[in-house]
Amino acid sequence: MKETSLDKIVSLCKRRGFIFQSSEIYGGFGAVYDYGPLGTALKDAISQRWMKSMTQLHENIVGLDSGILMHPKIWEASGHVGAFNDPLVDCKHCKARYRADELVEENPEDAVWKNIQCPSCGNAGELTDPRQFNLMFKTHVGPVEDDAAAAYLRPETAQGIYVNYLLVQGAMRLKIPFGIAQIGKAFRNEIVARNFIFRTREFEQMEMQYFVKPGNDEDSLNSWKEERLNFYSDMLGIDSSKLRYHGHGEGELAHYAKEAWDIEYEFPFGWSEIEGIHNRTDFDLKQHQEYSGKNMQIFDQEANEKYFPYIIETSAGLNRMLLAVLSDAYWEDSENNRVVLKLHPSLAPVKAVVCPLVKKDGLPDIARKIVDELKPHFKVLYDQQGSIGKRYYRQDEMGTPFGITVDHQTAEDNTVTVRERDTQKQDRIGLDGLTEALQAKISTYS
Amino acid sequence: MKETSLDKIVSLCKRRGFIFQSSEIYGGFGAVYDYGPLGTALKDAISQRWMKSMTQLHENIVGLDSGILMHPKIWEASGHVGAFNDPLVDCKHCKARYRADELVEENPEDAVWKNIQCPSCGNAGELTDPRQFNLMFKTHVGPVEDDAAAAYLRPETAQGIYVNYLLVQGAMRLKIPFGIAQIGKAFRNEIVARNFIFRTREFEQMEMQYFVKPGNDEDSLNSWKEERLNFYSDMLGIDSSKLRYHGHGEGELAHYAKEAWDIEYEFPFGWSEIEGIHNRTDFDLKQHQEYSGKNMQIFDQEANEKYFPYIIETSAGLNRMLLAVLSDAYWEDSENNRVVLKLHPSLAPVKAVVCPLVKKDGLPDIARKIVDELKPHFKVLYDQQGSIGKRYYRQDEMGTPFGITVDHQTAEDNTVTVRERDTQKQDRIGLDGLTEALQAKISTYS
Repeated sequence: MKETSLDKIVSLCKRRGFIFQSSEIYGGFGAVYDYGPLGTALKDAISQRWMKSMTQLHENIVGLDSGILMHPKIWEASGHVGAFNDPLVDCKHCKARYRADELVEENPEDAVWKNIQCPSCGNAGELTDPRQFNLMFKTHVGPVEDDAAAAYLRPETAQGIYVNYLLVQGAMRLKIPFGIAQIGKAFRNEIVARNFIFRTREFEQMEMQYFVKPGNDEDSLNSWKEERLNFYSDMLGIDSSKLRYHGHGEGELAHYAKEAWDIEYEFPFGWSEIEGIHNRTDFDLKQHQEYSGKNMQIFDQEANEKYFPYIIETSAGLNRMLLAVLSDAYWEDSENNRVVLKLHPSLAPVKAVVCPLVKKDGLPDIARKIVDELKPHFKVLYDQQGSIGKRYYRQDEMGTPFGITVDHQTAEDNTVTVRERDTQKQDRIGLDGLTEALQAKISTYS
Repeated sequence: MKETSLDKIVSLCKRRGFIFQSSEIYGGFGAVYDYGPLGTALKDAISQRWMKSMTQLHENIVGLDSGILMHPKIWEASGHVGAFNDPLVDCKHCKARYRADELVEENPEDAVWKNIQCPSCGNAGELTDPRQFNLMFKTHVGPVEDDAAAAYLRPETAQGIYVNYLLVQGAMRLKIPFGIAQIGKAFRNEIVARNFIFRTREFEQMEMQYFVKPGNDEDSLNSWKEERLNFYSDMLGIDSSKLRYHGHGEGELAHYAKEAWDIEYEFPFGWSEIEGIHNRTDFDLKQHQEYSGKNMQIFDQEANEKYFPYIIETSAGLNRMLLAVLSDAYWEDSENNRVVLKLHPSLAPVKAVVCPLVKKDGLPDIARKIVDELKPHFKVLYDQQGSIGKRYYRQDEMGTPFGITVDHQTAEDNTVTVRERDTQKQDRIGLDGLTEALQAKISTYS
């Protein structure tokens, strides 16, 4: 395992404007994070790449963006109102609160529940029986706070796809098999949030629901397993030795699932799930037909029959994916005494920094002109502050793949030096073809 | 005014998969909409263009993505807990509920409030006195529903920028003036939602907050007024005769504003606001300093002094912008008996459809190959269903700018016809340069 502690990444993220604690001036706000300029740009680049891989590269997959607020009956049909609970226990002595399942996991030797010590005050036998606590955030729509107007912040984006799938299929004239892909926020009132942006109360999901004829579900799941794993190495540049599949045993399966696999990444805190590939069968569609009273079967023209399609789901956490990309890119180049984010250039928030070697002799003007020429094509920065080495090292921490220096030779022969972030190798390139040369490096490098 | 009723646009949006009513199978859910495949793609294209115009074309503007959930004290400081209210009245007779200010607006002749007739049952003198109703959605974070854990869904994205502005400025080494741009959801518990996606309970804002030295605020506001108006014509292709400014008089100004202008678009239902340009002074930063106890002044190195910057805000509604783009693009070509969405090609959800003229003679295979070649570069569709005219007309309604037909000549000379959506003009283009030819049209056409 790479020697990267999570703390170092958290610290870099704050220092360079990737990720901040929410509401910091008010002492923070539990388990929510704000994404700074570089975090926002990197997150956008990852999500655009995912959306492209789904809806542009597959003719039969289309996008959707359903609301965070939906009809509350949807969450009865999905099972979230009844069964989306965490078991909570309190310590009668010190009033601390825990998730019962995690206390048990951490204390496997304690066969009898009540023997477990409270991790906070250390007393044994003081824990209450577990009570069920629903993880959905509840609010009220309309001016009266009564039960009729209750609504929930969605705990997953998938249901928004299911309730719309026939409208989408009809409007886009889709034939089975087809997929619907969605990126959006979801909310869970987690009791124990942890590991930075890995588990938070507000997060973003990227879910694709693939509708297939029953009987073709197992083949489809297998082909999505392969495609989704490849996405991480091919489209995000992540080291494939740090990726693996974990299959769910019978006891681990959710109530709707026939088969389930997690893609895990080896984070600084260990192997953890970044995406799930699930065979959700026809469970959800049947539930929605029952609760809405509307037909949820599809008419398959080719087979000339009506049925409930089976659904293969690929469900990824955008924030976790971002954390995997950051963890994977984090590199302490001890030889050169610098920290580098080895981001794939196509993902890097800033593509190039343009630096005049000195603040005089007209070099700043030339550098400014280069910035103006490059900026319609991709994000560049201008920097004239400090030694050239310091300027580069700043950009290395931001993941900027190219450093362009304007020196005295530039005024003579219209060439600049282009420095590569990872190798620190420098080339002289003519200004005439600079935009194209950089564009080629950004799109082909991997 | 163009003869476009809103109903026709709503109907096209549903038929072609731009926008659906939320939770339709459950009878709908008040004032929330779901964006279908084409609506999602068009909304993304608009927001990416906005983000590019801010953070890529301006070196001194950076992005941010703060949480929907924030510390509740932020909404005390901003004034939303105390003053973000609508006055509501009930009819004692039929129990209908209204916004008092709108009833008064619709009944200007009724000098005495209680004389107004209930629009629902027609009785006069039955309305209650107005009561204040807060527009923020409230929820609870953590397992106990008590006041300490109350949280709100943000009613605007701006405050997320203010509370983070010094963290962002420090991490990105920004010097005044600078801007922070954010795209994100906001929520308002509107009593009277209306005009399709124009006013909804869940919506997306695109806000840019520009921090300037006090004294430079009026010049900055004026230059942002110009730039933002140009955005609509130059970057979204909207007819500039349907855009205008409306200035706020003294009585219309919000509590934080020194000067305020609305960009209005002439929708089918009349001139209405799509963006506001506001001089918010140092009101918000001073409030946050008072409520958080933290310093919110900036140190201006150049001037060697500390002060509260003034803030010029450009605040646009993404959904309204989308509705303006759709309204502007909607064209009933009665001469040719078709409906066309004249979208700017760079915004169009699908760039081209590829059609074999007939389903035989190997033409489908050639068409499929063209799709495979084009799809890594932009979104294309394959269509072999129905007459070629019908196929084109379908795409016209979707706003697809180019139709590519593979015919028998293609097999002979490797050329295809490329049909332009608006003019219906057709050209023969060689397959060798097809990708580049289309890319050039997509990026330069306006």
